[in-house]
Amino acid sequence: MAEVLAASQPSDWRRLDMENTLYFDFSKGRVIIELAPAFAPQHVANVKALAREHYFDGLTVLRCQDNYVVQWGDPNADKPELKRKIQNAKPTLPPEFERVIDSKRPFARLPDRDVYAPEVGFSDGFPVARDPKTGKMWLVHCYAMVGAGRDNAIDSGGGTELYVVIGHAPRHLDRNVTLLGRVVQGIELLSALPRGTGALGFYDKAEQRLAIKAIRVAADVPAAERSVLEIMRTDTLTFQSLIESRRNRPEAWFHTQAGHIELCNVPIPVRSVAIAPDR
Amino acid sequence: MAEVLAASQPSDWRRLDMENTLYFDFSKGRVIIELAPAFAPQHVANVKALAREHYFDGLTVLRCQDNYVVQWGDPNADKPELKRKIQNAKPTLPPEFERVIDSKRPFARLPDRDVYAPEVGFSDGFPVARDPKTGKMWLVHCYAMVGAGRDNAIDSGGGTELYVVIGHAPRHLDRNVTLLGRVVQGIELLSALPRGTGALGFYDKAEQRLAIKAIRVAADVPAAERSVLEIMRTDTLTFQSLIESRRNRPEAWFHTQAGHIELCNVPIPVRSVAIAPDR
Repeated sequence: MAEVLAASQPSDWRRLDMENTLYFDFSKGRVIIELAPAFAPQHVANVKALAREHYFDGLTVLRCQDNYVVQWGDPNADKPELKRKIQNAKPTLPPEFERVIDSKRPFARLPDRDVYAPEVGFSDGFPVARDPKTGKMWLVHCYAMVGAGRDNAIDSGGGTELYVVIGHAPRHLDRNVTLLGRVVQGIELLSALPRGTGALGFYDKAEQRLAIKAIRVAADVPAAERSVLEIMRTDTLTFQSLIESRRNRPEAWFHTQAGHIELCNVPIPVRSVAIAPDR
Repeated sequence: MAEVLAASQPSDWRRLDMENTLYFDFSKGRVIIELAPAFAPQHVANVKALAREHYFDGLTVLRCQDNYVVQWGDPNADKPELKRKIQNAKPTLPPEFERVIDSKRPFARLPDRDVYAPEVGFSDGFPVARDPKTGKMWLVHCYAMVGAGRDNAIDSGGGTELYVVIGHAPRHLDRNVTLLGRVVQGIELLSALPRGTGALGFYDKAEQRLAIKAIRVAADVPAAERSVLEIMRTDTLTFQSLIESRRNRPEAWFHTQAGHIELCNVPIPVRSVAIAPDR
């Protein structure tokens, strides 16, 4: 992989779009989320609206379940008199579990089979599954993917409560929750949190819950406070080379070549850029 | 799954064998590892010999790489004058990457395909892959599996340095490292450690390294200090029911049924037993 990265060209990388990037700031640092408007346009718009009305600021991490998810939102969501008020955003939305396959969008299909879906690969930098029979595609619950928690009703989510995968890909959640983005930097601020000792990893005491300083759309943050990141494009020959270098590892350490790769084992390289952003 | 557990009979469970159980004690608590002598007899014997000469006591956690592994051993392993001396155990061993399929041993094969291997399932409580063409079977790098780190030479490991998987199953390591057990309780003491900021998640400063109080074979620990655990047997109809309840989830929350399951997404239930152990 180091060789593939070293040989990559500027055109193999793309700058994060500030309008579709969230900064999730804690006292200890920043988690950066790339949003996926191509897959969950309504949820992405709503989470941005929530961020823009400062809905999340001062709310907390509610849950950390080992090998599963970290979840954050309003600890008083069930208490009408105490819960955080929503101003312009929507409290709930219809689900965006899957979308129609757009054959014009790039799809870097993996050559290997998948346990859960007929086809898997990458589209716009996100891990994706497709079913040619239904004509649908959907985002996949790999490590670091971010979704909108919901109750039993499929239209009871909307982005006020979000989660990120911090364990082995819980693929049974695919098409059951709206995924809307992916953590591209700083996940260790969440994945290394103490596990909650309540049911499902919820924190049972208020003092265990890490406070969220602010969640902002990157475009709204002064340029000097932005984190400038580039993500490797997934629609390039370079990314194909990277996948191949992970299917069959050239490093001397490897004795047996897997010859295959599972979708969630493909890394999507990220790099910091020293220069100031364009916008 | 709750229903399957509630309906389970005493015969669906087995007590951990104290002779093949390791207690990995830290100031903050205990990690319990079930050893796999059926798959790595020499490595299991050697790690027990190391534990019995108190080799690990006072050594440290060396590495915590996000979405990958936590590794522990001797921080001075590369310094001949400072490194921990081995008394009766062996410093290195030939690899035990795979073994011949023993058709008399139970194998609960999953009905679903796998990305990496022709057949996968459970044997003796461990996640296993098999290849009928080569007649071999091997342990699989699921979350919580424990292996013996090595350098480039395949016979350079032996159990002095061990690691546990704390992220998405790194299946490319299968048949490249000797797996010898699985954490059955307490993994959150390791998976929630701060990530190392050195290359590959190694801790670059001595003060970042968590000290190991002791690693002991459970049989050597006074009965009053033992943790009495039962593991669900994987060769029962009850375990088959559990797998089915995870392939197609009956809970009202689920909108789409996966209809499949990946090996590393199958949980192996563990429960504490209130009574004293037999031995």
